[in-house]
Amino acid sequence: MAKNEKMVEQITSMDVDFAQWYTDVVKKAELADYSGVKGCMVIRPYGYAIWEAIQRDLDARFKALGHENVYMPMFIPESLLQKEKDHVEGFAPECAWVTVGGENQLAERLCVRPTSETLFCEHFRNVIQSYRDLPKLYNQWCNVVRWEKTTRPFLRTSEFLWQEGHTMHETEEEAREETRRMLGVYRDFYAESLAIPAYTGQKTEKEKFAGAVETYTIEPMMHNGVALQGGTSHFFGDGFAKAFDITFTGRDNTVRYPFQTSWGVSTRMIGAIIMTHGDDNGLILPPAVAPIQVAIIPVAQHKEGVLEKAREIRDLLAKKFRVKLDDSDYSTGWKFSQYEMKGVPLRLEIGPRDIENNSCVLVSRVSREKNFVSLDGIVDAVEAALKTVHDELYNRALENQRARTYDAHSYEEFLDIAQNKSGFIRAMWCGETECEEKIKDATGGVKSRCIPEKEDHLSDVCVCCGRPAKHMLIWGRQY
Amino acid sequence: MAKNEKMVEQITSMDVDFAQWYTDVVKKAELADYSGVKGCMVIRPYGYAIWEAIQRDLDARFKALGHENVYMPMFIPESLLQKEKDHVEGFAPECAWVTVGGENQLAERLCVRPTSETLFCEHFRNVIQSYRDLPKLYNQWCNVVRWEKTTRPFLRTSEFLWQEGHTMHETEEEAREETRRMLGVYRDFYAESLAIPAYTGQKTEKEKFAGAVETYTIEPMMHNGVALQGGTSHFFGDGFAKAFDITFTGRDNTVRYPFQTSWGVSTRMIGAIIMTHGDDNGLILPPAVAPIQVAIIPVAQHKEGVLEKAREIRDLLAKKFRVKLDDSDYSTGWKFSQYEMKGVPLRLEIGPRDIENNSCVLVSRVSREKNFVSLDGIVDAVEAALKTVHDELYNRALENQRARTYDAHSYEEFLDIAQNKSGFIRAMWCGETECEEKIKDATGGVKSRCIPEKEDHLSDVCVCCGRPAKHMLIWGRQY
Repeated sequence: MAKNEKMVEQITSMDVDFAQWYTDVVKKAELADYSGVKGCMVIRPYGYAIWEAIQRDLDARFKALGHENVYMPMFIPESLLQKEKDHVEGFAPECAWVTVGGENQLAERLCVRPTSETLFCEHFRNVIQSYRDLPKLYNQWCNVVRWEKTTRPFLRTSEFLWQEGHTMHETEEEAREETRRMLGVYRDFYAESLAIPAYTGQKTEKEKFAGAVETYTIEPMMHNGVALQGGTSHFFGDGFAKAFDITFTGRDNTVRYPFQTSWGVSTRMIGAIIMTHGDDNGLILPPAVAPIQVAIIPVAQHKEGVLEKAREIRDLLAKKFRVKLDDSDYSTGWKFSQYEMKGVPLRLEIGPRDIENNSCVLVSRVSREKNFVSLDGIVDAVEAALKTVHDELYNRALENQRARTYDAHSYEEFLDIAQNKSGFIRAMWCGETECEEKIKDATGGVKSRCIPEKEDHLSDVCVCCGRPAKHMLIWGRQY
Repeated sequence: MAKNEKMVEQITSMDVDFAQWYTDVVKKAELADYSGVKGCMVIRPYGYAIWEAIQRDLDARFKALGHENVYMPMFIPESLLQKEKDHVEGFAPECAWVTVGGENQLAERLCVRPTSETLFCEHFRNVIQSYRDLPKLYNQWCNVVRWEKTTRPFLRTSEFLWQEGHTMHETEEEAREETRRMLGVYRDFYAESLAIPAYTGQKTEKEKFAGAVETYTIEPMMHNGVALQGGTSHFFGDGFAKAFDITFTGRDNTVRYPFQTSWGVSTRMIGAIIMTHGDDNGLILPPAVAPIQVAIIPVAQHKEGVLEKAREIRDLLAKKFRVKLDDSDYSTGWKFSQYEMKGVPLRLEIGPRDIENNSCVLVSRVSREKNFVSLDGIVDAVEAALKTVHDELYNRALENQRARTYDAHSYEEFLDIAQNKSGFIRAMWCGETECEEKIKDATGGVKSRCIPEKEDHLSDVCVCCGRPAKHMLIWGRQY
């Protein structure tokens, strides 16, 4: 081994222990570190760079639809949180409370925001008077806190980073359209930028957001068949508006309540990326959000001309891609493993023989296939190779999702699948919360994911109680 | 007046009541709103867009120097905060404390971060082992909380947004260089992007940051002669490293403590922009951070061809500038006032006569001078006009700073200036904290701003005590 060399540390195999594999990847790809506060994590530079890429991408999608960013206070007075009854019941049990400010006990304790509907409503009340003030299409990037009992980096942390859109509309129809539009933005973003296919649809009454009339959700399946609630979009009707006394003068000169939505996705998406695409060699990042899209590894870099050529290629590619040339004194093999661990989508190898042939080698992180390509037209070749990596990731995840989605036509079949397979279950449902509770108890945790946007007709009756079916539901265990 | 028209609301004149003028501008330019939590503000879309422009600009400057963004938890356990003695003494009195999490009293209370040195140190301890792990050049964009007694939007709020750089270095010299380099980044950013000239220099022992060996500061002067501490850069030596037991193996194989810096600027800069550049017509934004750089106002927009031409110009300019075409049914005069109030640097007027002449009118928000320019080459003309606005702003502020900076050669002269002029005072100083305290008491609040990078020799003795002078100090009242 070369001087100062260390081997890339081994990670646990996915098949041996998926949870340990996840923790190993988070740690060894240097995405996050634990902190001294239970349930709070440090997001390290490589992990944060993924979040920055996600933010840039989503922020542009939001702004293209006319949304504006704002910033609300992080503290919610207890009395403000209590204004909407369902909302406070849903969130109060997991709030962190500030009770001392400076050196004084506060007259009213302040909740560290778990979500900001109440703060937005208080502000909307000040700035909405006329139909001319509508719609308000606001979004906020911020940190929120939910006091979780069991936590895992990115998947479930007491503090996390997210965006929360909050919009107000003149009509119910407009607000409903916005709710569905933003679910669509999430679906497109997951597919186009994270290379993650997902089921989308409506949450049941039992699973909807505290205070919402309807909640829509995106539910990608992780590699091991477990669901991750990947983002939600809520239609609030005019319930918060009434609770907070937000009114506007309509076109007909009558006083009306506006209709509201909110929608959000979080750093949990980094967990989704890890668990959808990763393998036993570590992380695999979709090119659109990879901090490094191409790792250039010189082969026999001490030989004359190799580093010069590698730098020339780096400078050329850097105009269009996020590129890193590693000319450190670690061995070539160590570098290969290191950038595989970090999930860099594409490796470019360049050595003396390649230079003689005016070519280089491109290696996909997914297929690990080697392609010899000419240095003329290298920019196009890299672009095509990155597109291939994206497609490979998406298709592989889609295949996994399809292979692990099972139809249950009877209660026995449902329990059998729940016990013996890991994945999603499609089954008919009567519409009653009581059947969801019964299934959850009987299976030790299988919950409804959503009523999918496109329902199939599997039978006429609820898989649980036998009463007439109202919907097809997708079920699964969740993170 | 046209249908639905309202006049742009009047604001208080600066000369009548500067504080009220400031509040009026913040409110009427729609930068911020008050919230239900004392001292916390809502940053509205127009205000937040300024912050986004600031972030983009500064973030690129940091990254060009090799800094990486990270995210630390927002909570600091009390025991962690207490590890560095001076630091906890400085910050504990203004902390907000979380004492309840979920439904349980916490075993140890958690401080909402007022600054994150302690959290970074805890993490550095985990990730620094060898000189090969250095330097660590980290930055974080986040919210922080300091429980302030009297607050004003942007200038002093209990919660504010900022960036905090935290770096660790192998040698003292490297860390000192970084401290000065980042002060230089702030100085350049203020001059090049905010069009704000400023004094830069070292804080006295009395005014330095809690836990720092040395603090450097940027001190712009507001229009009314009052100082705003605009950003700070701290050299910590190895004090925190020792308190947190952060060590590394050096090149000589001995165990050493690394040397540390931190540096930060905040949303307070938006307050500096308002108070440096604004006038009785409202806000004036430097082009580099203006959400709208050019407001296009069609004149006689109902006439054939006017809106078409205005849109054509908008589409052309939008490729290079942030442009807004206002084709609403408000009157032209109302629009002029509105975009003046919002501080848009450049107004472009286009009407039937202009179209006939293949020209338009450009009006600077600063000089309010009208320039007729040909539509051929309009992109270059706008670029030049924006540059002129920037230069006008910078030079006007520099002139104000020069005109309001006074030299005091005796204690009596000092008191006379402090009582009768508003601005900065340059005076010699013995180096003792006791003279700073005496002057502050005698003047009702004049404090040392900094020992400037370039000191002049005004006399041989301290203006306060008559002992031999060690430095020239710049003094002033502050926000």
